[in-house]
Formats: sequence, structure tokens, C-alpha cells
Amino acid sequence: MSNTEKIPYKIYLDEKEMPKQWYNVRADMKNKPAPLLNPGTHQPMGFEDLRPVFCDELIKQELDNDTPYFDIPEEILGFYKMYRPSPLVRAYCLEKKLGTPAKIYYKFEGNNTSGSHKLNSAIAQAYYAKKQGLKGVTTETGAGQWGTALSMACAYLGLDCKVYMVKCSYEQKPFRREVMRTYGASVTPSPSMETQVGRKILAEHPGTTGSLGCAISEAVEVATTNEGYRYVLGSVLNQVLLHQSVIGLESKIAMDKYGVKPDTIIGCAGGGSNLGGLISPFMGEKLRGEADYQIIAVEPASCPSFTRGKFAYDFCDTGMVCPLAKMYTLGSGFIPSANHAGGLRYHGMSTVLSQLYDDGLMEARSVEQTKVFEAAEMFARVEGILPAPESSHAIRVAIDEALKCKETGEEKTILFGLTGTGYFDMYAYAAFNDGTMSDYIPTDEDLEKGFAGLPKMD
Amino acid sequence: MSNTEKIPYKIYLDEKEMPKQWYNVRADMKNKPAPLLNPGTHQPMGFEDLRPVFCDELIKQELDNDTPYFDIPEEILGFYKMYRPSPLVRAYCLEKKLGTPAKIYYKFEGNNTSGSHKLNSAIAQAYYAKKQGLKGVTTETGAGQWGTALSMACAYLGLDCKVYMVKCSYEQKPFRREVMRTYGASVTPSPSMETQVGRKILAEHPGTTGSLGCAISEAVEVATTNEGYRYVLGSVLNQVLLHQSVIGLESKIAMDKYGVKPDTIIGCAGGGSNLGGLISPFMGEKLRGEADYQIIAVEPASCPSFTRGKFAYDFCDTGMVCPLAKMYTLGSGFIPSANHAGGLRYHGMSTVLSQLYDDGLMEARSVEQTKVFEAAEMFARVEGILPAPESSHAIRVAIDEALKCKETGEEKTILFGLTGTGYFDMYAYAAFNDGTMSDYIPTDEDLEKGFAGLPKMD
Repeated sequence: MSNTEKIPYKIYLDEKEMPKQWYNVRADMKNKPAPLLNPGTHQPMGFEDLRPVFCDELIKQELDNDTPYFDIPEEILGFYKMYRPSPLVRAYCLEKKLGTPAKIYYKFEGNNTSGSHKLNSAIAQAYYAKKQGLKGVTTETGAGQWGTALSMACAYLGLDCKVYMVKCSYEQKPFRREVMRTYGASVTPSPSMETQVGRKILAEHPGTTGSLGCAISEAVEVATTNEGYRYVLGSVLNQVLLHQSVIGLESKIAMDKYGVKPDTIIGCAGGGSNLGGLISPFMGEKLRGEADYQIIAVEPASCPSFTRGKFAYDFCDTGMVCPLAKMYTLGSGFIPSANHAGGLRYHGMSTVLSQLYDDGLMEARSVEQTKVFEAAEMFARVEGILPAPESSHAIRVAIDEALKCKETGEEKTILFGLTGTGYFDMYAYAAFNDGTMSDYIPTDEDLEKGFAGLPKMD
Repeated sequence: MSNTEKIPYKIYLDEKEMPKQWYNVRADMKNKPAPLLNPGTHQPMGFEDLRPVFCDELIKQELDNDTPYFDIPEEILGFYKMYRPSPLVRAYCLEKKLGTPAKIYYKFEGNNTSGSHKLNSAIAQAYYAKKQGLKGVTTETGAGQWGTALSMACAYLGLDCKVYMVKCSYEQKPFRREVMRTYGASVTPSPSMETQVGRKILAEHPGTTGSLGCAISEAVEVATTNEGYRYVLGSVLNQVLLHQSVIGLESKIAMDKYGVKPDTIIGCAGGGSNLGGLISPFMGEKLRGEADYQIIAVEPASCPSFTRGKFAYDFCDTGMVCPLAKMYTLGSGFIPSANHAGGLRYHGMSTVLSQLYDDGLMEARSVEQTKVFEAAEMFARVEGILPAPESSHAIRVAIDEALKCKETGEEKTILFGLTGTGYFDMYAYAAFNDGTMSDYIPTDEDLEKGFAGLPKMD
């Protein structure tokens, strides 16, 4: 790209340039992601098996490994226009601060009240639930972005929304909870005494601060035992990656418009919703042999499913009521250390991304949280956006890559996903500002305990 | 405007369409705003009188009632590009919800980490301080947006930043404080024991939760007694309205592009920074007789400077160390009831706006806070943005006007200023969600106490 002078600080697509279809990367995968299995029989779950848990239309999306494009319904396109397109930002100020010859771009998904990309899938899932004539949906939330996004989507469509929020987040983030209440959602700290599985977990682990896996179990139980409710999930699932492809599609359209091609694409990865969405059209080109990209997943050193997990069938939840999924996992009983701030704390990883990683189509790195917050603070001061701790994992590696370019003189083009803002994570920033934040890397023994809980397969 | 189909949900100007100059509405005013007076001699303050307090370049802007346009320096234009242009949003979803024939637009200034329009003037004031070779700046903050904005601007330019934060906000908003710390600012609850004026106020009013007027006195004292520091202010001053004209200029360029002309322009008003900026180019046309607009200032019923104040010379601060300004005021000793949430709690009002209001060129309305939060909640649910309590004053009146159109069938075009987001105001939303929020309207006796403190003029 020669005439970089022409590239503005922020590229906003026109409404008419916005994607009208989601892209399903599974259609281009030679090795398809492994199917969900019934936890009792270990048989693949079909449409009918999943109907008690998920909406019909979403099951179709979940199971479809062949259709490359799905039309985005008009109503969802309308909602997208309320907060999209999101800007693709050229990080001129960060480049200058680093003194790097690298060209850094980030796709910023935080300019909506949920504070993250989660709204892209929340509105889709709520829409299909509404279309099916349901009363409401249940879900879990960890850091709170997903719960907030779902509350917003449900308020817009007039659906009831029950959120089970991991207890430590519920306590650390009373204001995040209050946003969900403002959007009319009910928010319950998990594990709770409201469900059978919650009572069981509390009996076995009194005083637990909860985990995503545990909150999922509760939300699924409530969905399957209440007439007119279904369960929805903000990450991990194939359908979520499908909806989130809008991030990558918009990024690619914007870059193509200016003749820019990324060399390296970086995203944080917890369950994989952002990374999967950001990379999808680029990965599609790579799978079809049309282009090559270096793709890097970044995860916390305290919850290292890609870099230290096993690629195996595992329970998606702690209560073991959900289907089994084949994924890079730390075991459904793994809970990150209490000093871990922010999200990215799920024990497993999207089966799509797990397969792509296992096939050598992408890399993974783990980073420690004090290094992550150092990057977050630098970014906030020069780019003017206070990033979410999750997003800051990607910032960390983008900065590291840009500094490598400074050494080598390479003029790489780096694209990373800035998933959201950190306004509800100030307790974590306070720990960093006070110098009381610490790092935690699980020992091999810690990980062995998690792996011991993996289901025995035939 | 016939072909409304063509108007997108959000209008973003291209970078090359962004204003390159600020507009000074004073140049077109027949009755110029009254000059600042020395509080001792009651003589107009000139350039030299103001030098101990303000930066040189800013004093020139403050005193210039004749130059209609000021070039925006390149460095500030660069910073503006980091977070501007801000979107002009067509509120299709709100219109639909209200069932109104009115066409509603809002200029959304909240998509930056300071969460408001305050950054527009913060970067300008910090830039001129830096250019003058100063070490740092001092200021006060109430709701916290201004302090955050100034912290961001100072971090960017490498200036020291000392913020005096009204004590009740300091306590209610620990996370807001933490954002400022992340940007490297020092934040002190006001009144403090660090200053002479703070100690005096604390001795006279032990246990006071502070006020803007009091925090201003402290910040001015620190600026004038420390080598290399100056004081900066986020509202009220002429220079602030000049910088904030970028809001109105962008709005007007965007509307002109689509051939849209507002009938009614609505903005919340505390000290007047947002309202003054939003209306400036429209008011300019009105003053020059080129067009007519209905312009409405909205203020809290609990702090009603326009609707129940006096147009008189008053102290700008509680400690009476600042110049006197002629403005609509409740008296510098007036402190809104503790149950008042959010900002817009300054006792006075911009001299420019005060003069325009006195000349009958704009209207004013006061609204009660439970009605404001009702509007905020409705807006959040249909437009997807959780508004700041301050901004929600404008939303309230915009909705009221749109509902009037529903009755009359009038297809008015309404433009309002959505100054910011409410992410750090969730304690107030919690009170509203819990049903514990109350209203407060000062009695005539309450107001008389404030008026009794007005300075005796010759």
C-alpha cells in the first residue's frame, strides 16, 4: 500500500456497504468441526435433540457445515444500523508512540452500550427466539458484556431475559448489573439456590465465586424447565461465530476499499466469539488458497486453553447438563485464579477455532495480566479509548509484533480486534494503578486436576 | 425534506468535511456579553489581569468579541480525528416508539472515553498550555466528565493535571476517579485541606459534600500559587463555547449535506458548554437574520438558573477568588439538594447564553429528575445508548416536543444534543430502578438565600 496518506483515522462504511449476509467459515473447512455429542450416549446431537435447549432456526445454523452464506434478516440489519458499522481505526497515534514502521489497524466494537461485539449475536439470537413466539431467553454472563448485550436485544424486541451472572463478577461489577436491570433483565448471582444444579454446586463447593461453566448449567436448567424459554450463549457455538462474522466482513470491506491487506491478524480468545468473527473471511481465503495470513489467538496465561489445554471432547458446563463438544479445553472443572481480572475465563474454546488451530491454520499465545494492563494503559493514553481487559490481550500482542517490526524494519500491516471498552472494569484498573495486581500461571498439577475431569470416550 | 428514505441512521462526515475553524457567535451578537469584572474594583478584566489564571492564547479567545472564526491548530485537528467526527443520528427507533410524525436527530458526543463533549475543549485548553511551555493545569470536576476529558488531553500531551472533584461525586463515582488516575491525573476530593480556601470552607461548613463553585476556588488557588500552572475550566467561559462550536458546525454540515433544516434545537444546560456549542452556527444565522430556529435550553428543576435565576453580576466560585461574570445565576452560595443526580449543578450560566436568553433569542425549560430518568430509560431501550443524566434532560424535552407533534400532526424536525453516556452514573440509575429516586424543587425562600449572596454593584 503506497498512498497511506489517504487512509483516514477511522473508516466507517456507508450503510449500503454493510454486509447483508453472514459468512459461515465451516463451509470452506476441509476438516469440519466435530459434532456436539449427547453426554449420555455419546451419539451426535441432531435437530430434535437440541430443540429443548435452542431455538429452531439457531439449531439449523449450528448444524450447517456447508452453506457458506446466510442472509441477515431485515429486522437484524435495522438493529445493526443503530450501532454499526463499527469503525476500522488506523492507529496512527500508537504507531508514532511505538516508533514502528508497522501499520496498525483495529476494528473497534465497543461503541455501543453493551461495550463489546457481543451485541452482534445477541440481537440475532433474540430475534429468532421472538420469531419462534417464545416468551424469553436465559443465559449466563461472566465479565458482563454478553448479559448486557442480550438485555439490550431483549428490551428492543420485548422478550423476557434471565441472566445468571458469575458471582465474583456480580459482586465486583454492581454497575454492570444495574445496566442490565435498566434494560429490564433479571440478574441472579451464580451459583444460586434457584436451580437444582446451583444448589448441588453450592453444597459441594460452599463459598465458591462461581464460573462460566456453572452459570451455563443454571441457565440451561431454567430454560429447559420453563415453558416458552430457550437458552442462548454468547460464545463458543458455531452460530455465534456465524453472527460475529459481521466483524470480519466489515473489516475486510473497509480494508479492500483502501487496497490494504493485513499480514497479521490478532484477536483475544476466551470462547472464540470475537476472534472467530474477526478472522472468518480472511480464514476463508486462506482455506480456499486465495491468500495467506498470520493469525494469532491471544489468551490469558491464567486460563490457557489453546496453549496448554487438550484437544478432546469435554462438557461445555460444570453441571454436565450440556452436550459434549470437541475443543481445546482445560476441563470443565477448571476455574481461573481469583486474581484474574476480566473475561476470557471459559475452560474451553470454540470447536471451529479448535479444529483450525489443530490443523495449523492459526497460532496462539498466552500473556500475563500485568503485561496486558501495561499495554491497556499505553493504548488508552495515545488512542483515547480505555480498552476492556479482554481486548487488551490483543493490544499486548499487537504492540509486541509492532515492536518486532521496529527491530527488523519490516513494514507489516497488523489488524487486531478491539472488542470493547473497560468502563465497568475499573476495579481491575484500580488494582493495576495501585500496583496490587499480580500474575498467575497455573502449575502442571493445577491443569492435571482439570484434565482428570474430562469424560471417558469410547 | 421529501426524500427521507435516503437519510442513514448515522451520518459521519468524512475527515475532509470536518470543520477547520471554530465559530465565535459573539462576533454576530448585537448585544455583546458583559465583560468579566475584577471582584475588588469592579473594573473590566483585561489581558494582563487574567494572565495569572489563564493561558495567554485562551485569554485572547476569551476577550475577543469580534473575530467570527478561529483556525483550529493542526495538532488539535489531529486529536479531533482520533474521536471525531461524532455521529449525527436519525432517531428512527425513537420516532417509531413514540408514533410521532416529528423527525428527530441527535448529535452524539459520547463515543469517547471521557464519555462526553468535554474533550473538544479539554484538548484545546491543554494544547495552548503546552504551547506556552507550562508544566500543568488545574481544574475542578463535578459529574466527572470534564476531569476525565482533561486527564485524557493532558496524558496525550504530557502535561501534569490536578483535578479537584466535588466530594459527593468523588464518593459516588470511584470508577470515574479511577479513569482519571489511569490517565495519570491526580484527583483530590473538594473541599480539601490542601488549599486555604478549602480549609476555610470546611471550617464554615463541616461535612459539606462540596460544590462546583467551591472546587473552582481550590483549583484557581493551586494554579495561581504554583509556578508553571494555569487554571482551565470546562464550561461557562466564552473560550469553551468557542471550542464547543465544533459540535454545532459538524451538525450543520451533516444536515446541510442532506438538505435537512431543524425547526427546534434542544440542549441541556448547566454552565452552557454543550448548548452553546450545539446552537452556535444556527444562532449565528438567526442573529444575522438568515434563518429562524426555536432554541430550547433544558435545566434541572433543582438547579434552575435560567428559569428562576437573576440576570446579574455574580461570583463564578464559592471562594470569591474568580472574576465576576454577568449571568443568570442562583447565587454562588447555592448548592442543589443532595438528591440531585448527575451534573448541571452549577449556580450560574455562560454569559453568552445569558445575554442571548435575555434578548429573547432562546427559551428555557426546567424538568424534574424522575421524568428525566423515565426519558433516559425509554431512550436507552429503543436507541441502544445509555445516556448520561445530563443529556437526558434534552431527551426529555425532545420527547415532549415530539409528542406534541403527534397531537398536532406537525412534521417538525427536532435536533438535540446527546452530550454523553451514563456508564459512570449507574448509582443514579440504580436509585431510579429501585424506585427510590425523588424530585426536588427549591422553594422561593431557598432561592432568596442564594440571591442574598449576590455582590452589591455600583
